[in-house]
Amino acid sequence: MSDKDGKEGDMAKILIIGGGGMVGQKFATSLADTPLLGPSDEITLFDLGFPEGGAHADHRISGNVSDPLAIKQLVEDRPDVIFHLASIVSGEAESNFTLGWDVNGHAFWAFLEAVRAEHSASDALWRPRLIFTSSIAVFGAPYPEKIDDEFLSAPQTSYGAQKAISELLISDYSRKGVIDGLAIRLPTICVRPGKANLAASSFFSGIIREPLNGAEALLPVSTDVRHWHASPRSAAGFLRHAGTLDLDLVGSRRALNLPGVSCTVEEQIDALRDIAGDDVVALIRPEPDETIIRIVKGWPRNFAPQRAIDLGFRAESDFHQIIQTYIDDDLRR
Amino acid sequence: MSDKDGKEGDMAKILIIGGGGMVGQKFATSLADTPLLGPSDEITLFDLGFPEGGAHADHRISGNVSDPLAIKQLVEDRPDVIFHLASIVSGEAESNFTLGWDVNGHAFWAFLEAVRAEHSASDALWRPRLIFTSSIAVFGAPYPEKIDDEFLSAPQTSYGAQKAISELLISDYSRKGVIDGLAIRLPTICVRPGKANLAASSFFSGIIREPLNGAEALLPVSTDVRHWHASPRSAAGFLRHAGTLDLDLVGSRRALNLPGVSCTVEEQIDALRDIAGDDVVALIRPEPDETIIRIVKGWPRNFAPQRAIDLGFRAESDFHQIIQTYIDDDLRR
Repeated sequence: MSDKDGKEGDMAKILIIGGGGMVGQKFATSLADTPLLGPSDEITLFDLGFPEGGAHADHRISGNVSDPLAIKQLVEDRPDVIFHLASIVSGEAESNFTLGWDVNGHAFWAFLEAVRAEHSASDALWRPRLIFTSSIAVFGAPYPEKIDDEFLSAPQTSYGAQKAISELLISDYSRKGVIDGLAIRLPTICVRPGKANLAASSFFSGIIREPLNGAEALLPVSTDVRHWHASPRSAAGFLRHAGTLDLDLVGSRRALNLPGVSCTVEEQIDALRDIAGDDVVALIRPEPDETIIRIVKGWPRNFAPQRAIDLGFRAESDFHQIIQTYIDDDLRR
Repeated sequence: MSDKDGKEGDMAKILIIGGGGMVGQKFATSLADTPLLGPSDEITLFDLGFPEGGAHADHRISGNVSDPLAIKQLVEDRPDVIFHLASIVSGEAESNFTLGWDVNGHAFWAFLEAVRAEHSASDALWRPRLIFTSSIAVFGAPYPEKIDDEFLSAPQTSYGAQKAISELLISDYSRKGVIDGLAIRLPTICVRPGKANLAASSFFSGIIREPLNGAEALLPVSTDVRHWHASPRSAAGFLRHAGTLDLDLVGSRRALNLPGVSCTVEEQIDALRDIAGDDVVALIRPEPDETIIRIVKGWPRNFAPQRAIDLGFRAESDFHQIIQTYIDDDLRR
C-alpha cells in the first residue's frame, strides 16, 4: 500500500495461490486485461509451476502450498486480496487419502494460521480478503430436486470433506476478524481446455473438447446423468465478482452455491450436435467405467442458488453457451 | 479380545475419552450397572482428572487429549468401542481461540490419525466403533421453525465450527473403513449437577439446580428464549444406544440430531414452580448479560430429529420430566 489515505488509486496487492492452474490462468489473463481494483494492481501468482506463454503477472513464484516457509513469505507481503485456488483434485484426493488431507486439509489450515500470525503482527491492521474456490462436492446424495442455500454439506468424497472443512475454517476466521473470507462453490467447470486431469469429472469436458479437436472421447457414464456446469470464463467472472463484492452483504454464512447450468449428458451431446454436427458427435464413444459411474452417482444434479444470484453472481444460461465459450476462448486460439 | 470366535461373551474393551466429565461419569456409572456388550466389558476412562468417589471403572487414566503419546497408548490397546466426549467447552473455545482449535480441532484430528496408524498396523483388522459427542452448536441462525435432518451446519461459534469439522472427519474416516463412526449432536444437557461450568448454556441448568438447592440463581436472558434440552440420563442413554446400534442403518451421513425437549425459559420456570413451588422459583433473579444474550440468540430453538427417532434414540417428552430426573438422579444422592 502507498502512504496515501484510502485505497482508491493506491496499489493493491493481489495474490493468486494456484495461479498456474487452468482457472487461475484464465483469471490472471482476465486481470491483465481489466484490473480488479485499479491500474496499479500488483498481481502475484503462486503455484507448483506455470504453463509456457501463460498469463502475464507482476510476479510468478514457484512453490508448494505445503511449504510453510513459502507460505510465510507470501503472507508477509500482506496482499490485500488473496484468491486461494490450489488443491489436490477430487480423483487424486480419493485415491491418495494422505496426500489429499495433507494438502487440502492441513496445509490450508496452516495457511490460515500464517495469515493469523501476520494479522497479529500488523496489530490487526492487515485483514486480507480471502476468496476460496470450494466445490459442489461438499454435497452428498440423497438430494432434493434442486439444492437450495440451506441444504446440508454431507460430502461423500475426501475432496468434498476437505472443501467443507476449509469453508468452516474460513467462516470462523472471518467471524473473528482475521480475514474477510468467502468460499465459492464452483460448479463443475466445463469445457476445460487442454488435457484431461485426474478429476472424476474430467469426461464432462472431454466429450465436448476432444470431438471439437477431431479426437475420440470416451463417455464413462450413461447419457441420462444430470450435472451442474459453468464455463472457465464464468469461473474467472465468479472470482472477479467475489474479489470486489461487499462481503458484509453475504452475512455470516461465508460459503455460497454459485449459479450454473443443469443439464444431462444427452443435452450436452445435443448441444454439441447443434453447434458442430453429427460427424463431431460420432467421435464420442461410450465406454462405461464403474468407478466413475459410482462417484458421479453421488454428485448433485441441480441447484437453486438464490443467495449468489441476489449477490450478483452470473453464469451461462444453457449448455450451448458453454460450448460456444470454449470455441471462442480456447479452440480458436 | 479372547481367542474365541465372535464377540458374544468375549471381553469387549470400552474406552471413554472425557470419562471424568459430568456426562462421562453418568455414562460410566450406567455401564457399571448395566454392561454395554456383556459382563466382561473392560472399561477404561481417560480424562484430565476424575471426581473423588466417581464412577467405577477397570482403568482410570489421567492425561491430556493433546498429548500424542497418551493418545497413542490408548489406541494401541485397540478398544472395541471408543466414546469421545472430551472437548474445550463453548464459552472457553470462544474466549480462547487458540486453545479451542488446538484441542477440539488439531488434537481430535491427531487422535483420528493415531487410530488410522493402528488400523494399518493391524492389517485393517481393528476398526473401532467411535461415538463422538457433537452439539447443536453446529447450527447457526437464521433457522426454520424446526431444524430438520437436512439443514445446513453454519456454526456461529468456534466451538460449533470445531464440532462440525470433527463430524466431517468422522464421516470420511468411516467411509474409508478406518473407523465405524457416529457423531451425535447432543441437545443442551440440563439439569447438570454440581457447579456451573464455562459453557454459555450453563444458566439453563443453574436456574433449576440452584433454587432446588436453596441457592439464588442468575437468569442472564429473557424468559421468552426457547431452547433444546435433554437430561444427563438421556445423554448417557444416547451414548449407550449409539454404542450398540447397527451403524449401517445410519447410512453415509454420520452426524445425527438427537431428540430433546423444546421449551422456553418461562416454561422451564413454570415446570419448576409446579414441582417445587413459588418459594423455590423466587430464588431466580433476572440479571441480563449482553454477552450471553448475544450468544444464545444464535442458538437453535427446536428440531424435528426424525432420523434419530427412527433409529431408536429417546429423550424426555417435557421439561417436568427433565427436572424430575435431576431430583431422582442427583438431588437425592
